[in-house]
Amino acid sequence: MKLTELFTQPDPDFGQAMTALLETFHHSDDSQAPYERDSFVHQLDQSSMPATGISTQAYLERLATLVPGASHLTSPRYMGHMTAPLPAFTAELSRLLVMLNQNPMKMESSRLLSFLEREVLAKLHRLVYREDDAFYAAQMHAKDAALGVMTSGGTIANVTALWLARNRACGDNLFSLFEQGYRGAVILGSRLMHYSFDKGMDLLGLGARSVWRLDTDEHNRLSLAALEQALRQCKEQKIKVLALVGVAGSTDFGSIDPLPELAAIARREQIHFHVDAAWGGPTLFSPRYQGLLEGIDQADTVTLDGHKQLLVPLGTGMLLCRQPDLMMAVKREAPYAIRATSFDQGRFTLEGTRPANALYLDAAFQMLGRQGYAELIDANYDRARRMAALIEASPAFELMSAPVMNLLSYRCIPPHLQGKVLDEAANEEINAFNVALQKAQRAEGHSFVSRTQRAVSRYGEQSLTLLRAVLLNPLIEERHIRELLADQQRLGIEVARRLFG
Amino acid sequence: MKLTELFTQPDPDFGQAMTALLETFHHSDDSQAPYERDSFVHQLDQSSMPATGISTQAYLERLATLVPGASHLTSPRYMGHMTAPLPAFTAELSRLLVMLNQNPMKMESSRLLSFLEREVLAKLHRLVYREDDAFYAAQMHAKDAALGVMTSGGTIANVTALWLARNRACGDNLFSLFEQGYRGAVILGSRLMHYSFDKGMDLLGLGARSVWRLDTDEHNRLSLAALEQALRQCKEQKIKVLALVGVAGSTDFGSIDPLPELAAIARREQIHFHVDAAWGGPTLFSPRYQGLLEGIDQADTVTLDGHKQLLVPLGTGMLLCRQPDLMMAVKREAPYAIRATSFDQGRFTLEGTRPANALYLDAAFQMLGRQGYAELIDANYDRARRMAALIEASPAFELMSAPVMNLLSYRCIPPHLQGKVLDEAANEEINAFNVALQKAQRAEGHSFVSRTQRAVSRYGEQSLTLLRAVLLNPLIEERHIRELLADQQRLGIEVARRLFG
Repeated sequence: MKLTELFTQPDPDFGQAMTALLETFHHSDDSQAPYERDSFVHQLDQSSMPATGISTQAYLERLATLVPGASHLTSPRYMGHMTAPLPAFTAELSRLLVMLNQNPMKMESSRLLSFLEREVLAKLHRLVYREDDAFYAAQMHAKDAALGVMTSGGTIANVTALWLARNRACGDNLFSLFEQGYRGAVILGSRLMHYSFDKGMDLLGLGARSVWRLDTDEHNRLSLAALEQALRQCKEQKIKVLALVGVAGSTDFGSIDPLPELAAIARREQIHFHVDAAWGGPTLFSPRYQGLLEGIDQADTVTLDGHKQLLVPLGTGMLLCRQPDLMMAVKREAPYAIRATSFDQGRFTLEGTRPANALYLDAAFQMLGRQGYAELIDANYDRARRMAALIEASPAFELMSAPVMNLLSYRCIPPHLQGKVLDEAANEEINAFNVALQKAQRAEGHSFVSRTQRAVSRYGEQSLTLLRAVLLNPLIEERHIRELLADQQRLGIEVARRLFG
Repeated sequence: MKLTELFTQPDPDFGQAMTALLETFHHSDDSQAPYERDSFVHQLDQSSMPATGISTQAYLERLATLVPGASHLTSPRYMGHMTAPLPAFTAELSRLLVMLNQNPMKMESSRLLSFLEREVLAKLHRLVYREDDAFYAAQMHAKDAALGVMTSGGTIANVTALWLARNRACGDNLFSLFEQGYRGAVILGSRLMHYSFDKGMDLLGLGARSVWRLDTDEHNRLSLAALEQALRQCKEQKIKVLALVGVAGSTDFGSIDPLPELAAIARREQIHFHVDAAWGGPTLFSPRYQGLLEGIDQADTVTLDGHKQLLVPLGTGMLLCRQPDLMMAVKREAPYAIRATSFDQGRFTLEGTRPANALYLDAAFQMLGRQGYAELIDANYDRARRMAALIEASPAFELMSAPVMNLLSYRCIPPHLQGKVLDEAANEEINAFNVALQKAQRAEGHSFVSRTQRAVSRYGEQSLTLLRAVLLNPLIEERHIRELLADQQRLGIEVARRLFG
């Protein structure tokens, strides 16, 4: 075959094979190809590429051995992952989006899709900040304005927020902080802040230790008393507070910090107020639940994540900016690519060349509509409450946080400790039990929750192993939840026998 | 329609419509929907999402108005973009990859595809560093080892390299540099370094001014004399050199810095040596041209970019590390996600959750093979030489750099200056002429090159507007090159009349 034909002649077998692979994938779970590290290592141990290309047919055979080993994130018995099953149109839309291969860094390399990106960002801006028509008409496509930026994910969105906050405080040169008389710089937030903030502060040259993780209250929300104390301490020690971070949907509990109070404090102290709503942002679609995010419209910047509750593929984060001129604090240009006089979005994105994933959002916005998202949110949040009730009804489980959104923390209690008062030693046993149980369930592959390690107020400061359920898949029915809990009870008996005799 | 059906019932019309849209797109150019800012702004000016979802059919109608406005990057008369047309199998593979929605940040959420990612990185590591079987058998899947990391693109790869280099020099806290007695920290490289290095140093808290852009020689390669002088200056002024950057394929000229000499200097000075081979890396596939990159195997880190000469979709960058333990300098963990005791790739990627784009690379590696890449590279590099010859044969053009790879810089000379000695005033006229010409060609939409602004040694330090051709599309034939140059000559006459009367 002439090499150029690879670019011009699609192989119809290939498309049919993808359909078949996906069909099988969607109707199976990890039990089809259990995770066995040694065999996975052995399966993929080639460090050389083939000298000459293999045929499409041969590659399809390879793919057929790879796909069963992927994680079956879309099974309705899988409630531990933060990625959504995607609307069916996404598969076909991906063909278009990938083959258009537009680069919205630059007008020249994406043209109309640059405008689409700005429109998508405006729609999300409006969801969060609810400005009026005149505001959006003036700002959406204005030159030195950005209602937000697209990023590859929530981490880069949070890093961009810190970058902005730092450059607002001291430009791009940290040493100028010293010239202003400061002895350090920190960000303040709860101990439940995402770990991307540590990465961000490391990257910014301030060190992960400059992320001050403050105490939370009994509802896993940032304690205002702890915050006020930290602010006093910063003043006394001449430490600059670059940003106050509010969490709107902690990854472990789905808890939401007291945003109106944080906004007021940030305003009083003139601190950049960032809200990480990577998980919780789309709650705003729901008339029933949107009140949970009251105060988010006072944030200087807000992180959203497409692949979570916005239901688009991985690789689509966003940072929204209340004030359209905020991004100018990190504006850059390059002679061959990003001209200062241009409208190029690349003037202020941390990333350079990147895919036009805004199209996925556009399709979902149009075909789901606000009401579609609201229905999905409501159903998921209701499911979490139903699951919490099932957990509370059984002595084999302990609910570790009341559901706020659709994230639940709980743990399994081994038979010999059910109904007992749990002291520190008992909790250590329960920790070991839940680690082993989660691993056993994952290995079996029929159902799945993830696990985390956190203190929970009723047990003081002791670090506890928690199981973490994410009710995101719209195809989850009550029977799936019951199956998952039944798997845990069954496996729990085996694990308890193994651990405790 | 029940909302859950959106997730379970693919609409066959939607797939057919995507095929038709792509077919039209591939056989058209920007002249179908000329770039008219006002009309594009007007077309996409909605700041509210629809209240209820629109039908698939209605969305297809919207898409049909969007796609013609995209940039027709794949036209063989478009030689100004750095994105490749993709092998035809990519379209179908994207369906699988997107719907699997695997997250290789974490073993649990990608399982076998995490191993695939490591295999892909090992293959690229071997291409660059040519270690032996035993090395790869030991390192490819080892726990605290990373032959590289996947990133969303070349920018994040370069930023990660700087992050690594800085943390090697002073940990995650810049202020420790001061404690070591330094008065600043810089990176050294040529003035042709990519602008992502400025972003990176801004991000790292050192400021874009800490990117020292040194002089180049007449072949657009970093001047060793300038480098030695900069090193002396850093010593005298107690400035820490965090990294020496070699460019392997400058974005404007495709020029390659003297890598063996830079490697020797970096070793002598004990400086992190990074090579930005985002463009040039795949040259290594070609037995004919791989000598151009001699010395790259001595780099501590190397940036590659999938969407350029590796022929995969946007969103796929890589940073390779010569030593597998290097990434430990930026290792992070998080209780609910990235366990320190795990094999999770997320322990050292700047990004968190991200798509499993390694599968695109795997498919291309397998179906093209090393020889397929080599043939494409050779054909493209030869095409650049043919285009250079056509340019040199005409008084209407001036070649501004001899082709090294497949990037060419040239400019058009307006009729009244052809054959003349060009002084500074003439060059200013030619600059204005080439800006106007490039805009006119872009507006017409039949063919395309990009433009940049650079000094070229034969004209001293004067900043010149250059046209920039990228010979990446395997479907470009000599007739397309001739058409593009003919368009420029035709438009040049009109533009000259307009500008010079």
